Amino acid sequence: MATYPDSPIDLRSDTVTKPSAGMRRAMAEAEVGDDQYGEDPTVRRLEETVAGLFGFEDAVFTPTGIMANHIGIRMLVGPGEELICDADAHIVAHENGGLAAHAGIQTRTLPSTRGLMDVAELAALVRVGDRYTVGTRALEVENTHNRGGGAVYPIEVLRAIRALADGFGIGLHLDGARIWNAHVATGVPLAEYGAVADTMAVCMSKGLGAPAGSLVLLPPGRAEEARGLRRRLGGSMRQSGILAAGALFGLTNNLGRLSQDHENARRIATALRSAGAAVREPETNIVLVDVDDAPAVAAACAAEGVKISPFGPKLLRIVTHLDVSAQDCDTAADVVSTALMQSPERD
Amino acid sequence: MATYPDSPIDLRSDTVTKPSAGMRRAMAEAEVGDDQYGEDPTVRRLEETVAGLFGFEDAVFTPTGIMANHIGIRMLVGPGEELICDADAHIVAHENGGLAAHAGIQTRTLPSTRGLMDVAELAALVRVGDRYTVGTRALEVENTHNRGGGAVYPIEVLRAIRALADGFGIGLHLDGARIWNAHVATGVPLAEYGAVADTMAVCMSKGLGAPAGSLVLLPPGRAEEARGLRRRLGGSMRQSGILAAGALFGLTNNLGRLSQDHENARRIATALRSAGAAVREPETNIVLVDVDDAPAVAAACAAEGVKISPFGPKLLRIVTHLDVSAQDCDTAADVVSTALMQSPERD
Amino acid sequence: MATYPDSPIDLRSDTVTKPSAGMRRAMAEAEVGDDQYGEDPTVRRLEETVAGLFGFEDAVFTPTGIMANHIGIRMLVGPGEELICDADAHIVAHENGGLAAHAGIQTRTLPSTRGLMDVAELAALVRVGDRYTVGTRALEVENTHNRGGGAVYPIEVLRAIRALADGFGIGLHLDGARIWNAHVATGVPLAEYGAVADTMAVCMSKGLGAPAGSLVLLPPGRAEEARGLRRRLGGSMRQSGILAAGALFGLTNNLGRLSQDHENARRIATALRSAGAAVREPETNIVLVDVDDAPAVAAACAAEGVKISPFGPKLLRIVTHLDVSAQDCDTAADVVSTALMQSPERD
Amino acid sequence: MATYPDSPIDLRSDTVTKPSAGMRRAMAEAEVGDDQYGEDPTVRRLEETVAGLFGFEDAVFTPTGIMANHIGIRMLVGPGEELICDADAHIVAHENGGLAAHAGIQTRTLPSTRGLMDVAELAALVRVGDRYTVGTRALEVENTHNRGGGAVYPIEVLRAIRALADGFGIGLHLDGARIWNAHVATGVPLAEYGAVADTMAVCMSKGLGAPAGSLVLLPPGRAEEARGLRRRLGGSMRQSGILAAGALFGLTNNLGRLSQDHENARRIATALRSAGAAVREPETNIVLVDVDDAPAVAAACAAEGVKISPFGPKLLRIVTHLDVSAQDCDTAADVVSTALMQSPERD
Repeated sequence: MATYPDSPIDLRSDTVTKPSAGMRRAMAEAEVGDDQYGEDPTVRRLEETVAGLFGFEDAVFTPTGIMANHIGIRMLVGPGEELICDADAHIVAHENGGLAAHAGIQTRTLPSTRGLMDVAELAALVRVGDRYTVGTRALEVENTHNRGGGAVYPIEVLRAIRALADGFGIGLHLDGARIWNAHVATGVPLAEYGAVADTMAVCMSKGLGAPAGSLVLLPPGRAEEARGLRRRLGGSMRQSGILAAGALFGLTNNLGRLSQDHENARRIATALRSAGAAVREPETNIVLVDVDDAPAVAAACAAEGVKISPFGPKLLRIVTHLDVSAQDCDTAADVVSTALMQSPERD
Repeated sequence: MATYPDSPIDLRSDTVTKPSAGMRRAMAEAEVGDDQYGEDPTVRRLEETVAGLFGFEDAVFTPTGIMANHIGIRMLVGPGEELICDADAHIVAHENGGLAAHAGIQTRTLPSTRGLMDVAELAALVRVGDRYTVGTRALEVENTHNRGGGAVYPIEVLRAIRALADGFGIGLHLDGARIWNAHVATGVPLAEYGAVADTMAVCMSKGLGAPAGSLVLLPPGRAEEARGLRRRLGGSMRQSGILAAGALFGLTNNLGRLSQDHENARRIATALRSAGAAVREPETNIVLVDVDDAPAVAAACAAEGVKISPFGPKLLRIVTHLDVSAQDCDTAADVVSTALMQSPERD
Repeated sequence: MATYPDSPIDLRSDTVTKPSAGMRRAMAEAEVGDDQYGEDPTVRRLEETVAGLFGFEDAVFTPTGIMANHIGIRMLVGPGEELICDADAHIVAHENGGLAAHAGIQTRTLPSTRGLMDVAELAALVRVGDRYTVGTRALEVENTHNRGGGAVYPIEVLRAIRALADGFGIGLHLDGARIWNAHVATGVPLAEYGAVADTMAVCMSKGLGAPAGSLVLLPPGRAEEARGLRRRLGGSMRQSGILAAGALFGLTNNLGRLSQDHENARRIATALRSAGAAVREPETNIVLVDVDDAPAVAAACAAEGVKISPFGPKLLRIVTHLDVSAQDCDTAADVVSTALMQSPERD
Repeated sequence: MATYPDSPIDLRSDTVTKPSAGMRRAMAEAEVGDDQYGEDPTVRRLEETVAGLFGFEDAVFTPTGIMANHIGIRMLVGPGEELICDADAHIVAHENGGLAAHAGIQTRTLPSTRGLMDVAELAALVRVGDRYTVGTRALEVENTHNRGGGAVYPIEVLRAIRALADGFGIGLHLDGARIWNAHVATGVPLAEYGAVADTMAVCMSKGLGAPAGSLVLLPPGRAEEARGLRRRLGGSMRQSGILAAGALFGLTNNLGRLSQDHENARRIATALRSAGAAVREPETNIVLVDVDDAPAVAAACAAEGVKISPFGPKLLRIVTHLDVSAQDCDTAADVVSTALMQSPERD
């Protein structure tokens, strides 16, 4: 029987990590300036570093990944124009409809297994516009895929989607909220991911452990326009070097260790499967479990000190990260298994 | 060998019909008033008549079906909220992105055979919203389906979609641009179609032959709001009873004869199939033909006096209507067959 | 004592005119085609005629003046950009906020006497944009001015505003809903009005008596884009030559006679002033009267068969037009005078 | 002759302040949680503290004042509805048109002296809506007023504007980016400012010296909706308690000392006036100077180590703050005076 934890084990998301002592020190010592005037040296360093890693010329720091996706896509698609993405993409599931509401962008979507679009199906969906027909202006992929359970696009598929976009002369945005996890899981260099995309969003506050902040990576010569959009959205902060310092610390110290999160996710999946749960095999740091009553199971676990996310009426999401150990994960797997067995409606 | 026509046979769309002498007379004699003041008696009569046919309390006359769809959907879905429709729906293919651009509505789409959504697939796509998730607010169906080749939803499927919407407590808009054709093809009473929808758009200028005008059918108590939206869009005309009179004439005189258009479509399909073309069997007044080079074939036909629409790089659309006879259709089928046989790239 | 009319005398607006027998005949005989395919010859003739009168290369027919203003301004100003107009302009008073809601255009306004902006005040309001500042992209003037009581901009003032726009390198839209009245009242050629504007809206359904329809006049090379916007708004009709024929008839037959409307407005003003009313001297076909309780006075007049518009809590608008004679106007002036004298709160 | 500074004296804005050692320490030690889950205790403490100071029930932390204004106003005004503000308000001058572009809000503006609207002029501008007329839904005031040179609304004027809003049954948003300066300059309690407004934005990163962050103060029961908007805009960060801790530190330590900034502004103004400059008398921490060529003067000052803002072609803005001493201000005044005297075009 498991020993239940004193303080909660929080596996709801990898966004719950708290800055470490080292990260806090780096933030406290950050050299700063007014970023609206383009004068924050730490923000500039972060922007240049991340842009460079992915082979982009320019990047702009944003408060969140939602804003980074929003700005990146607006570089490629105008009001009344069309973007195609998978039907479970974060941009249509969890961004409060901002692309439509604030940018007037039409989305058409493709239901997909684990969130990874089939290239042939995608090709069939793309439309060439004319006077009477809305043409597709850009495609969007999410890698790893959140609602797909951290699924990773094979780089060959991404290259095929890039070729498809090139064939139609349209753009490609990559939502790289967890691109770090894809990179660590596959060994594909960051620049190869960058090479398939016209714009990208990358997040510093999930696996890398920074308290806040994302970046949008940009086509050449678009940074000024992106900063204008950021300002219009209310995302142009002042001495944001404080946050950028946390992001740089996370990049330096927490990238390699994502493999541990992936290992921990597999531990949890193995344990749950042994206990008879309908677990989907994790590829990175997210474990999805099909259940009869997700809110009930999540509540039962919470009562035992383990926090996990109901991710739909019948789906649980468990996410490993910097602030949970292998032992925490074992404990959590025990608690979830017990909750699943006691769940009344296993018909 | 066919005798080619003196004046072109125009099968590009059923929108090309010209008002007949009788319709022109009805329009010339229409009693009118200022419809922005709600004082045009002919417009009111049309609104009440069409609302009544479909079992709605209220209808508002609009210049076009695009505006009728737009207003109808906005009665059900707000900015940043979500509508699900099939991936080939007119609202995402041919309305210039207006739902996103002007109303901020997020669309998620389901690729479907002949534009008719599978109920189970649709059910899997609907999402219940919460604090972090965009929930689905309404569904949209198009009947008959334009890009689906005039395909007709079985009424049982529409009822199942209605039940699905009810189960989620969300709305259902029916794009009835060619609902008249569905009605004539199936014998399902108009009111039964009306009963599945919260809002509907119906068009008077396609099969019914009026020069312009559609109506949006509304939930109880929403007509004033709909008229405000119509005004904001620039669709509130003055003595529009002139147009409404044409619509009423078409409704009275041209509804029953749609069966001839359907028969003519079948004639064309049969002839083309005999000639070896990849014709999809028409259900109503639209014939789709898969070809290697749609623009080339359409151009070849036009040179011989038959106008048809390229409907994608490899798809032709042929539409029968009030202004083409059975003999015109035979001639057209000959011309298209010849053009197909001479088309260079039949590999 | 006046003899009260058998049928109501409707002076609420010049939009209430009904098509005459001749106009109806012209409409019934109109040659038409599908205007969405650009094939309606009567629409094309109207577009070319009106564009030519004002010295523009292109014009697009729209269902309403609201849509013509909307499209014209969108040719000059993008989302998040700024337009300056007077604080009582039709575009911010009576177009349901469409410029902001559908086009994302920021308006800044200048309160003005009779709706006519002072050039120096306007110059002080224009702003040059930079990275942190929203610059002005276009100016808008309305001539004649509806809420200003049909006031006419002196052509010299319009030229000064044009020069101001040129100095800043920005655009100028002219809302010419009643430009015909300005032309007839001043004798300034239509082309001289056209010469000051980059885009214009002109209305065929007010003084000219057509049942519906306006045109937006366009900068060179923008017609295709304007038609795309019209389609997105739901304003692209089919055989709209029916309406265009009415507009052409009005242009041919009803332009010169606007001087009678102006004379009739002066008759009304003179009579009301004699009766002690606070009338503003009309310049064209609109008479404004300051009263204590506009809805009450309008209701009292309506009870006596004379319809006028409350145009604010303490303002009445009386508009002369094609369907009211000099005698109707005398009768109306009597009725309004009586109602004003009986109005309880003349403190 | 002045001794010129070793490191630049930056008077461009009070946003350039850098976090002090104590503030950095407070941030480094902040207790944090995931604010998207509503679990950051420092953010909650800041929200409750600031809401309490102004007598509001709820507040939501935002990355910037632009986002706080945006969300606050959207609580009061919907798409296509109208807001009235002064013609130089920050929301129409410096927020990149976001209210129109992202929220579809129509602005009408009133040119005003020093940015402070005259109540009678404002009353004349408010419009009651009806079926054909856009009514005013809310008013906006900015206190202190940035482009007005830090001008302070007398509390009696704010109360009169509140009464005006109440009379029309409409809302009032207060842009309190520098409300702290107004409070310190006048002694009016914060809660009395809060009492006039339905929603407020207050900024922690100007006079109070925090690196980033503002709050929007909300009507009862609207916090959830405001957080949804914040998320849609891309402003919902994770462990934002780091920033909130800086804001709380600034509130505790830097509020009272704003009087020094005001004194410093007066020193500069007095010195410049003695030197013959066209200075507007500062009420708080902003000094405006009318010049012939603002960019040239600003450049000349920058060359001597004093940074000030061109605020238009012929207007300079000088802002005092936490990081400039009285002596810095004396030095700056000398440098600016010299630059003004050497300016070539003093005609």
